[in-house]
Amino acid sequence: MNVVSIRSEGPVEALANALSQSSPLKLWSMIVSCLGDCALAGQAEVSGRVLSAMVERIGLQPQAMRVALHRLKRDGWVDSRREGRVGYHRLTDSAKAQVRAVAGRVYGPAVLGVPCRLVGFPPDTPDALALLPDTLSAVPVSRSFALVSGADADLPEDWLLAAPDARDWPSWVLGVLTEAACEADFAALSRVLPSAEELPDDPLGLFAVRILVLHGWRRLILRSNPAAEAALGEGRAEAECRTQVLALLDAIGPPRADQVLV
Amino acid sequence: MNVVSIRSEGPVEALANALSQSSPLKLWSMIVSCLGDCALAGQAEVSGRVLSAMVERIGLQPQAMRVALHRLKRDGWVDSRREGRVGYHRLTDSAKAQVRAVAGRVYGPAVLGVPCRLVGFPPDTPDALALLPDTLSAVPVSRSFALVSGADADLPEDWLLAAPDARDWPSWVLGVLTEAACEADFAALSRVLPSAEELPDDPLGLFAVRILVLHGWRRLILRSNPAAEAALGEGRAEAECRTQVLALLDAIGPPRADQVLV
Repeated sequence: MNVVSIRSEGPVEALANALSQSSPLKLWSMIVSCLGDCALAGQAEVSGRVLSAMVERIGLQPQAMRVALHRLKRDGWVDSRREGRVGYHRLTDSAKAQVRAVAGRVYGPAVLGVPCRLVGFPPDTPDALALLPDTLSAVPVSRSFALVSGADADLPEDWLLAAPDARDWPSWVLGVLTEAACEADFAALSRVLPSAEELPDDPLGLFAVRILVLHGWRRLILRSNPAAEAALGEGRAEAECRTQVLALLDAIGPPRADQVLV
Repeated sequence: MNVVSIRSEGPVEALANALSQSSPLKLWSMIVSCLGDCALAGQAEVSGRVLSAMVERIGLQPQAMRVALHRLKRDGWVDSRREGRVGYHRLTDSAKAQVRAVAGRVYGPAVLGVPCRLVGFPPDTPDALALLPDTLSAVPVSRSFALVSGADADLPEDWLLAAPDARDWPSWVLGVLTEAACEADFAALSRVLPSAEELPDDPLGLFAVRILVLHGWRRLILRSNPAAEAALGEGRAEAECRTQVLALLDAIGPPRADQVLV
């Protein structure tokens, strides 16, 4: 039985294992992904039973739920209420605002044809990039030069601006860009995503796959640098992976936490 | 007499004194300027008598001539021959080749509308700029970025190229450019150059002024950075000073070493 289950690992377990290769799945982060996905789909609350069932299906320990939820509440991410023996959990307003702020980047289509600029900042301003507004993304290519995408008007006035010669980046720049744009990680995610044919056919399994896909994608896309993506252009791994993810989420359908255990 | 001569300092002495303010006039360098100017005008040889008379008129010590010429010969800059009691001096072929190589930059019209590019070179290549071919000029704006003018095709393939946004350089770049393009020195030279009306009317005086003007201009233009000049564009001090120098050389007429003492 054990041998068989290893050999004929289902799509949920296979995906969970694959996603754990790069870095372990964190229970608290999975819960945020789940509550965020449901909230954006109009389902503010998710019952503790559904969360536990999903977590178990994924292969994480449901016993750790209590501690994870406690910490999320303490840190202002989650609100909970209890109805008899069942707990109901939702993102706090500030957490929801954060989820909404990145919803376009997580769920939206690939952004192509974004121009990127080469900028130089004055010497002795080591924090220059850290102080940029959210409307801009930057990837440093030297101690005082960076490639930037976003709202040009928000660039500091005393920066040197230039239009880089497009297409072929020299290898030392390409190395920085592929690293910052998480090329290898997107390609790896693309490889482990199930095809539409491989999806489980039970509601809980589908729900678990959706949250896993979203979670794996979300932690990666929020780490990847938009300026580096813009600089790499259309052939980048992020764009391909995004297409795959969006098609998969579409095939799975919206999250139906309330119907998972029905 | 002494008091009067100080007060009514002639144009040659005035110019010599003014040029000495930034850095002392070096006899050996004056001789090279003179022999080079005459060689380009088709007068390969200049007699020791003319050199001495010019040097004396300028206010340098003619006694130092023997030592200066000896060193120039030793270092392969000057060839001399003697005819009776008169020595005749000329640049060696290699020195003449060097003078010719920069003749366009020294005697030619201002070069305007030259594009400049922003380049980045790979990390750990501190000598990148020093290794550029002569067809390119570069002014560093950071540890691994520079503004470059010249033959783009000669730029190393692994450099990052970009077209800087024209016109208003940020102050930290402008500071680098004005320094590298010797803006203050060109402006200072412009201020001390005599007007055509102030020129002396004797052949030796005219000859001495020509060599002084040329010498002051030459040592400055060969120090100024062409890439920085290109980046500064039309309003730069070099272009104005050049116009003034060329007009003055034109007003003085070609060097006639053979007629100076006639």
